[in-house]
Amino acid sequence: MSEFNNVTIVKAANVYFDGKVTSRTVILDDGSKVTLGIMLPGTYEFGTDGPEIMEILSGDLNVKLPGTEVWQEIKGTGTFNVPGNAKFTVEVLNVTDYCCSYSTK
Amino acid sequence: MSEFNNVTIVKAANVYFDGKVTSRTVILDDGSKVTLGIMLPGTYEFGTDGPEIMEILSGDLNVKLPGTEVWQEIKGTGTFNVPGNAKFTVEVLNVTDYCCSYSTK
Repeated sequence: MSEFNNVTIVKAANVYFDGKVTSRTVILDDGSKVTLGIMLPGTYEFGTDGPEIMEILSGDLNVKLPGTEVWQEIKGTGTFNVPGNAKFTVEVLNVTDYCCSYSTK
Repeated sequence: MSEFNNVTIVKAANVYFDGKVTSRTVILDDGSKVTLGIMLPGTYEFGTDGPEIMEILSGDLNVKLPGTEVWQEIKGTGTFNVPGNAKFTVEVLNVTDYCCSYSTK
């Protein structure tokens, strides 16, 4: 799916890490939320409230998920799941475009 | 208007200047196009096809429009118009969040 139809998008961006990570919030027609974001090179720790599904649309990054010391490498596209109430670390090597989906549960 | 309703958003980002300028394309319900973008600090020259209306949602930048050597300063919010088939320069001092509207004519 290359686009989302019949959605609401919040105009103002979400800005983190001095703008090195930014995203836009999109509410889909089923009421669920996704954010479409960009990460520039750098290392970032994120925290989750609920579970998240991170779809990498394009990029080059390493991901360390909660409960592991193993880095998962993503070049190009990929997906990873993060549990709720957790922290994860990403090491972004090249500009990375992502879509993050949030559980509505 | 803090959000756009009933729109289509293209998932993949538009990436310029090594990711220091990125945007997402949104098609409004009247068929017109806007892009929601982020510019990180730096100096950038842009070219237009058709006329554009640049609404600065938040930021700190100087703008030099076509046909002038005068820099216009925008701190916080502001709007400027760019004619079609022209070049303009922005000097971004702090992370800048914008909404660019494109004429459908």
